[in-house]
Amino acid sequence: MKASVIGATGFAGAELLRLLEGHPEAEIACITSESSTGEAIASMYPHLAGRIEKNLTSMQAIDEIAAQSDVIFIALPHGHAMKIGKHLRDSNVKIIDLGGDYRFKDHKVFEEWYKVEHLDPEAKAVYGLTELYREQVKDAKLLANPGCYTTCSILALVPLLKAGLIETKNIIVDAKSGTTGAGRSLKLGSLYCSVNENFKAYGVANHRHTPEIEQAYSEFAGEDVVIQFTPHLLPVDRGILATCYANLKKGVTNAQIAEAFEAMYADEYFIRLRGKGACPEIKNVRASNYVDLGWQVDKRTGRIIVMSAIDNLVKGAAGQAVQNMNVMFGCAEYTGLQHMPIYP
Amino acid sequence: MKASVIGATGFAGAELLRLLEGHPEAEIACITSESSTGEAIASMYPHLAGRIEKNLTSMQAIDEIAAQSDVIFIALPHGHAMKIGKHLRDSNVKIIDLGGDYRFKDHKVFEEWYKVEHLDPEAKAVYGLTELYREQVKDAKLLANPGCYTTCSILALVPLLKAGLIETKNIIVDAKSGTTGAGRSLKLGSLYCSVNENFKAYGVANHRHTPEIEQAYSEFAGEDVVIQFTPHLLPVDRGILATCYANLKKGVTNAQIAEAFEAMYADEYFIRLRGKGACPEIKNVRASNYVDLGWQVDKRTGRIIVMSAIDNLVKGAAGQAVQNMNVMFGCAEYTGLQHMPIYP
Amino acid sequence: MKASVIGATGFAGAELLRLLEGHPEAEIACITSESSTGEAIASMYPHLAGRIEKNLTSMQAIDEIAAQSDVIFIALPHGHAMKIGKHLRDSNVKIIDLGGDYRFKDHKVFEEWYKVEHLDPEAKAVYGLTELYREQVKDAKLLANPGCYTTCSILALVPLLKAGLIETKNIIVDAKSGTTGAGRSLKLGSLYCSVNENFKAYGVANHRHTPEIEQAYSEFAGEDVVIQFTPHLLPVDRGILATCYANLKKGVTNAQIAEAFEAMYADEYFIRLRGKGACPEIKNVRASNYVDLGWQVDKRTGRIIVMSAIDNLVKGAAGQAVQNMNVMFGCAEYTGLQHMPIYP
Amino acid sequence: MKASVIGATGFAGAELLRLLEGHPEAEIACITSESSTGEAIASMYPHLAGRIEKNLTSMQAIDEIAAQSDVIFIALPHGHAMKIGKHLRDSNVKIIDLGGDYRFKDHKVFEEWYKVEHLDPEAKAVYGLTELYREQVKDAKLLANPGCYTTCSILALVPLLKAGLIETKNIIVDAKSGTTGAGRSLKLGSLYCSVNENFKAYGVANHRHTPEIEQAYSEFAGEDVVIQFTPHLLPVDRGILATCYANLKKGVTNAQIAEAFEAMYADEYFIRLRGKGACPEIKNVRASNYVDLGWQVDKRTGRIIVMSAIDNLVKGAAGQAVQNMNVMFGCAEYTGLQHMPIYP
Repeated sequence: MKASVIGATGFAGAELLRLLEGHPEAEIACITSESSTGEAIASMYPHLAGRIEKNLTSMQAIDEIAAQSDVIFIALPHGHAMKIGKHLRDSNVKIIDLGGDYRFKDHKVFEEWYKVEHLDPEAKAVYGLTELYREQVKDAKLLANPGCYTTCSILALVPLLKAGLIETKNIIVDAKSGTTGAGRSLKLGSLYCSVNENFKAYGVANHRHTPEIEQAYSEFAGEDVVIQFTPHLLPVDRGILATCYANLKKGVTNAQIAEAFEAMYADEYFIRLRGKGACPEIKNVRASNYVDLGWQVDKRTGRIIVMSAIDNLVKGAAGQAVQNMNVMFGCAEYTGLQHMPIYP
Repeated sequence: MKASVIGATGFAGAELLRLLEGHPEAEIACITSESSTGEAIASMYPHLAGRIEKNLTSMQAIDEIAAQSDVIFIALPHGHAMKIGKHLRDSNVKIIDLGGDYRFKDHKVFEEWYKVEHLDPEAKAVYGLTELYREQVKDAKLLANPGCYTTCSILALVPLLKAGLIETKNIIVDAKSGTTGAGRSLKLGSLYCSVNENFKAYGVANHRHTPEIEQAYSEFAGEDVVIQFTPHLLPVDRGILATCYANLKKGVTNAQIAEAFEAMYADEYFIRLRGKGACPEIKNVRASNYVDLGWQVDKRTGRIIVMSAIDNLVKGAAGQAVQNMNVMFGCAEYTGLQHMPIYP
Repeated sequence: MKASVIGATGFAGAELLRLLEGHPEAEIACITSESSTGEAIASMYPHLAGRIEKNLTSMQAIDEIAAQSDVIFIALPHGHAMKIGKHLRDSNVKIIDLGGDYRFKDHKVFEEWYKVEHLDPEAKAVYGLTELYREQVKDAKLLANPGCYTTCSILALVPLLKAGLIETKNIIVDAKSGTTGAGRSLKLGSLYCSVNENFKAYGVANHRHTPEIEQAYSEFAGEDVVIQFTPHLLPVDRGILATCYANLKKGVTNAQIAEAFEAMYADEYFIRLRGKGACPEIKNVRASNYVDLGWQVDKRTGRIIVMSAIDNLVKGAAGQAVQNMNVMFGCAEYTGLQHMPIYP
Repeated sequence: MKASVIGATGFAGAELLRLLEGHPEAEIACITSESSTGEAIASMYPHLAGRIEKNLTSMQAIDEIAAQSDVIFIALPHGHAMKIGKHLRDSNVKIIDLGGDYRFKDHKVFEEWYKVEHLDPEAKAVYGLTELYREQVKDAKLLANPGCYTTCSILALVPLLKAGLIETKNIIVDAKSGTTGAGRSLKLGSLYCSVNENFKAYGVANHRHTPEIEQAYSEFAGEDVVIQFTPHLLPVDRGILATCYANLKKGVTNAQIAEAFEAMYADEYFIRLRGKGACPEIKNVRASNYVDLGWQVDKRTGRIIVMSAIDNLVKGAAGQAVQNMNVMFGCAEYTGLQHMPIYP
């Protein structure tokens, strides 16, 4: 598979390059950056030196890029992919967008939360949370790769919603992400001295991953679900932990809960069920495509707390994108993704 | 005031020494450690060198220590203070316990959560969350200094509970603490390589600060409140952020909320009301006795999110203990506590 | 003393505000920033909230600022102070410059290393490494506050150079600084994800603090000293450790070395001599004006290794500036600087 | 190749498991731990869950382990390997020791620096700094894997020593290592709160890697070399940067220097020559087997500064051990070691 990366100089783009370079059946075709056109990617990311010796080109030549590629990954801020997707509708190249443009069934939800008009509302995109939508992913030509927080949050509660074990009201997702999630652009809040030894919430009550989580929760619950979602900024490079709270329906047993998780995930390569009482740690999934899940029940409150840990750049972005590529092209799903977590 | 510190080699003990040494009206009398009796405190904590040149003694000589002290701070694991408190009942020395022994009105709650018999159930201790119980603190002879998580969590929601603006069901406190909260003992989970670049929950559904928070919430709500409390371990030295979720009662306005906070805290030296939309950061209170409070309302869910930041070793332990000492001895409450936060 | 801070929004400027606010004999007059004129400093640095409620003004009004001030601190990049210094030559206000403009006896050295013409070569500035030049500081009207690396490096070896115990050839200073040293401007290399879990040298063989260190070494050695100076970037907020290597002259004993350090520093409030075999740690001086010094002799190589730790924002910048102010105005030298280090 | 790991629960042991599990031609046979015999390795290191489902056994059964293995890695503190090595002298299993026991040509050097008698002085071990001793490694039956600091330091200066471009006097290696280098045992100095936001030197003038570096320097210089070696503790998990200082011989040109590096390393898979002026960063080699080398010349001092970065757990321990295994068994040297560095 010849793969191109549009927007290769962000953290997700660079992580895609790492994964694609080590993928036995993929080959990197073109890599682009509008701000650094002409530069060697290894001069911007010296960790790639000796392995990826390509120069960045401009996405202005998107038609040529498409002609040289079997698949194009788009790792740009929202608003760009929908132009490319529309433009390449009739080409043969498959598209995997890591941004928000194509994640919503209803483009009005996108417009409401992203405050921008959707330019390609007719598109038929598949939502690529691989474990949940594998069948659709197989046939996808245009794939919307899920957000980092959303991947982590959706996988945590969907088994319980599907099995009807929790109430759909009063669901709270309190999530914490490493700083790569804030991207590589120059912002005061992203400086070392701003993040180190610090911790804070942000985007309270208005983060864009909220409707994306609700969309999946609602689908699996079979009813509209409105949640509280609060992201926080962790002083680490990588990793998301979502602490998810839901009220159990009356009489639900621990056995039913365990069964619900196993029914959905027991055969999943990338999901590790740690079971009742386990508290997943982000370092145990670092630099890997794993999802670690643990849960606890509080009898005093009748509530379940599900904790879910991923690496935001891998399962939360580039890794899941490659996982989707594998499914779309008929490779074994874990091809090129069998990296063990890096610990410590 | 001559002040002694029983258990001076833990992090809270050492922080007490820092604060007492800089306190214009206090003088350090005795400092004890059973494991390091005879050693110079400055050899264990070289940051104190040149300022505190005392040696550690044993608390076996508690009667002599009491005779030389106006106030004794106890910074030991739970279970010890109740012996000392009972033993010194009839002495003149005032006692400020930084542990859990005397925090509960009902000693059976202590016994249930701490799994140990209470040896001094007759004691009349004052719960020293200074801003809420200042009048009682003035006359206290035996004071129970609140826990770190509890200080942060209680101050966040009590104004709303007192004003009757939130429902008492479905309160969730998702809290995150720096690693000094885990103490200085040698545990695998406290190693640098275990904590750094990591994040996890712990004590889910069974942390001992839960009933302490509930005790205060219940008192100010005027009814029994049962909450969900989840602590997490942050890869920072100091700081707690509590993200507190509560369902607003119907029709409650932002103005009412603001008013509730101001009614209780507008004149408090150590509480900084950041207001609606503010997300407090732990680094902005580091090494100080401040509490930074911010809040947001989510109209979609009818919920309020109150965020509260403290330094767990200062307002969450040693600082509040000194604040209580000031009140107990009639000093200005902020004496020796006017340190500005250290940023960055 | 009415003190103004020109360039109050950098890290050194903000640290000056912290120290001045807590100084019992100083009062903050004007604070300036050209990029944020009109803003409240507490909105940019919320840790100052409730304590410093001033707005930033422009240094365009330097004459008015001077009229309202007894002392002006300049915390700007090099090249600005020499204009202000020249302009205010005949005013009564004292000036303490935290930048490089006035640090060199020979303005040509400045011009060679800073690649800019000196606009005020006639100025008579005192070099304010307080412990070494206290007498001159007393009478200074224009004071050049030393650089952070230089303070740390000079104090480490000057006693040995003065006592003639080490050779002046083959002196190597391998220094490591926290990230506040890189300032608060938006640079890729200052992002959290660039610095965290990373370490590197920079400015190898050409860092501007080199000639400043050499100037002091040469003066105390009584001959020209050329050194190797290599700075590195540490993933911490604050702190510098300088590891200084020098060849001992034949026959020099440990007793002579200890004596040399004590002769110069035994009575210094801010210098803590840890002695032979001690390895100072930057965390033991954090947020304080202390300098911790330790040393070791290697008999195999005939070399001494002197290690010196400071907080780069305090003794390396704002703290030493206030120390100099105290000396210039006849206060006790440690006034407002008795903060204990923050540990952990 | 069936590979066993003696001492699998330390950081180097666990890293070996990560690398061996991903090695296409290796299979993990036995893993041992005396303190955790019987436990599942994945319960101690949950990042291995789902991939390595083995239980720890005791090395008491070393004969059986040898019978089931083609190669045994020993990742124990010094003093143990020499017993195992002696015991298995006549078995067919190959041994790769990650400790210090077999690193010295002269066992008296070992005894002098490690303060313990050598129990197997007759052993014929090969020193496995692969790039320098590849031919001997091919035929090794007993291999001494180099230390972490030594790997980094030796590779930095050996090309210059071999080419005779630097003086052998006044060589100084100022090295900085991440905290995994201190191991996983419970020590106060390894606690998060001891290391975080801190930095210090240790083992000044007496670290055991000194004679190991000198042994290689001397061999390539053709004369006895005595160096100054100073290690420091970095607040990061992984990575070593060695800043190496040497006086250039008269007249040596930059071209000669570049040539010396290229002559030795141009064809090495794992060595990336960054060239003159480059400052290698430890994050650019993280979790990989790469060595990044950069250098600078100071005309003022006539000195060269060579900077070398590795991951101490990979090229500094487990990675180089696997590299040696590959050479010993005739695999391509990079088999199972092509992991890209993890950045950020």
